[in-house]
Amino acid sequence: MFPPSVQKLIDLFSKFPTVGPRTAARFVFYLMKIPKEEIEELINSISNLKKTVKICSFCFNPFESEGELCKICADSSRDRTLLCIIEKETDLFTLEKTKKYKGLYFILGGTVSTFKKADVEKLRTKELKERIKSYPEIKEVIIATNPTAEGEATALYLERLLKPFGKKNTRLGRGLPVGAELEYADEETLGSALEGRK
Amino acid sequence: MFPPSVQKLIDLFSKFPTVGPRTAARFVFYLMKIPKEEIEELINSISNLKKTVKICSFCFNPFESEGELCKICADSSRDRTLLCIIEKETDLFTLEKTKKYKGLYFILGGTVSTFKKADVEKLRTKELKERIKSYPEIKEVIIATNPTAEGEATALYLERLLKPFGKKNTRLGRGLPVGAELEYADEETLGSALEGRK
Amino acid sequence: MFPPSVQKLIDLFSKFPTVGPRTAARFVFYLMKIPKEEIEELINSISNLKKTVKICSFCFNPFESEGELCKICADSSRDRTLLCIIEKETDLFTLEKTKKYKGLYFILGGTVSTFKKADVEKLRTKELKERIKSYPEIKEVIIATNPTAEGEATALYLERLLKPFGKKNTRLGRGLPVGAELEYADEETLGSALEGRK
Amino acid sequence: MFPPSVQKLIDLFSKFPTVGPRTAARFVFYLMKIPKEEIEELINSISNLKKTVKICSFCFNPFESEGELCKICADSSRDRTLLCIIEKETDLFTLEKTKKYKGLYFILGGTVSTFKKADVEKLRTKELKERIKSYPEIKEVIIATNPTAEGEATALYLERLLKPFGKKNTRLGRGLPVGAELEYADEETLGSALEGRK
Repeated sequence: MFPPSVQKLIDLFSKFPTVGPRTAARFVFYLMKIPKEEIEELINSISNLKKTVKICSFCFNPFESEGELCKICADSSRDRTLLCIIEKETDLFTLEKTKKYKGLYFILGGTVSTFKKADVEKLRTKELKERIKSYPEIKEVIIATNPTAEGEATALYLERLLKPFGKKNTRLGRGLPVGAELEYADEETLGSALEGRK
Repeated sequence: MFPPSVQKLIDLFSKFPTVGPRTAARFVFYLMKIPKEEIEELINSISNLKKTVKICSFCFNPFESEGELCKICADSSRDRTLLCIIEKETDLFTLEKTKKYKGLYFILGGTVSTFKKADVEKLRTKELKERIKSYPEIKEVIIATNPTAEGEATALYLERLLKPFGKKNTRLGRGLPVGAELEYADEETLGSALEGRK
Repeated sequence: MFPPSVQKLIDLFSKFPTVGPRTAARFVFYLMKIPKEEIEELINSISNLKKTVKICSFCFNPFESEGELCKICADSSRDRTLLCIIEKETDLFTLEKTKKYKGLYFILGGTVSTFKKADVEKLRTKELKERIKSYPEIKEVIIATNPTAEGEATALYLERLLKPFGKKNTRLGRGLPVGAELEYADEETLGSALEGRK
Repeated sequence: MFPPSVQKLIDLFSKFPTVGPRTAARFVFYLMKIPKEEIEELINSISNLKKTVKICSFCFNPFESEGELCKICADSSRDRTLLCIIEKETDLFTLEKTKKYKGLYFILGGTVSTFKKADVEKLRTKELKERIKSYPEIKEVIIATNPTAEGEATALYLERLLKPFGKKNTRLGRGLPVGAELEYADEETLGSALEGRK
């Protein structure tokens, strides 16, 4: 029903995370209304992404400064005995915002729901093993995947993968989040909250 | 916290309808992962939008075929005595999907919440008056703005605007939508449902 | 886990419409805290219900005044040519609140999802047929069941049931409720809104 | 609009936790439909509540067995060095279901949002101080109020209240609940999750 060029762009936007056809259509009609300069600004910014943004050779976080390492990995005041494995880039920024973590990171690149080769290949497992091997100062590996089904499966896989290295493996504390009510908490979370009391 | 190029694109995406910083960040990291070819496809498609898509001179709907009129307005089997005024492009496609409307459309371009000059200027009121004047075959004008506060204010404004032309003004039927329960319907909707019974 | 008397009352409250075990438990602990006088007030009020409340012999609505008819059915200024069939008591009060209906009512007592004898027997179909037969002044029967799947099935069943009587059957108007947006309305509601325009 | 006896009972039910007028009306019409025997069963059960249910003299939990103590407090295998203070009865059952707590309980009876005398008087603070004083075997007091604003204020109040007794005060572990995503966790919960890692 939409003209071909409109439909084409709707289809491309529909591939964006969380975007369905209705929202994609809204995006397209929004773009059709904004001035030519703003369209060019958007196009250039998207183009630029691939050109100026580099991937940190230690943690695989995107960055733009000089060198091979991002600002965090290049910061000598960071605690190099701690390595925090996370699912994706946005998790890194989420944890940095708490200002409670002073170690280094490693972006795994996804999660697995099975231990099949096809699934596991999507993660940076090779690079992770390299990292642990090449940096003996690493004492504790925090597996900070989400406490979801996929995050748990991934944590299990990583624990097995890293066993040979003999480092201390930890997981983020489970418990009651801000605003929770005991009455509505599931038994597993509540059990963890009891055990993790302080 | 994000590298400048990443932050820049997050800011641009955050201006898209319904998109906040968190979703915009997801978009950017999605774009950083997809192959160079898909980025180019997206950029070209956005570029193309402005180049190949035309605006119908009758209803202001975007289209891509030859000529000045979109497929609907150029269709001689449409009922030219009916003109349906809608807020935006997506409403046109929403109504066309019902296959229950055989007349022509007019995309107003927005809504007003006041009758101040600044607000009213955002709508295609000049073009609307032109349309009614130049096409005496129009007998009924359906004001199909949303039954929301802004849609209602806009309908009121349009009714005043079109009074001099002496055409029959109608509004979409109010009543109970599919799946509704009398118990939870507001009094106004229920009153309309009673009056509009058949 | 709860003491027997507590569990017993939780089980009884759990049978109340919309009440699950968690809410039922909240009710019980609330009752255990309120003064003895309020408990007695509640018990007396529940007792009273069965004793002082009568069912109107015309519309089957509960009432407390003298005689056989409720206030609405006894009101000679009501339009006796209109009979509005509703699913339950609360629908009567919901419609009365609009102040837009001046006829009489008939409380069907439920809905059917099939036309099987077992289902149909739960409704006051026998009384309904009696009503239409005994009151020739009834000209229009409004079938005001909810526009839900069960409400629709029930409306269909009633239309067949009442066909022999040759009265005018109407249904509440379908259309856009207050606050709706065309973009999110389903095709059926939108089609009705187009057809029911005025 | 409802008959007086109906309205009266609707008003009484509207005082129940989580119940508004619409739900209260549903309750009343439900009661009007059920057999006389079920009404009597309900009335007797409510009556019984006050007569057969006792309040445990140690933890203030309702119970029905012989003696002054509920089943938990009378159980000699419970860890008498642990006292878990909770807001209400349902929290006790919620924690018992995890099977991860082997100590004793104390039901505070509510929360405070201020430390004003009027507010604090609603809680069993006098009894709590008595309890800690009379049972020197208590080594750890777990303040298990909800991690909500009121729960936190109450925890603060209790910590001050119990300081003189010199017992170890703990709070339930904060952290990520089952199913959470780092991206959507608030900074406080995430900070706790980092600190509470294991």
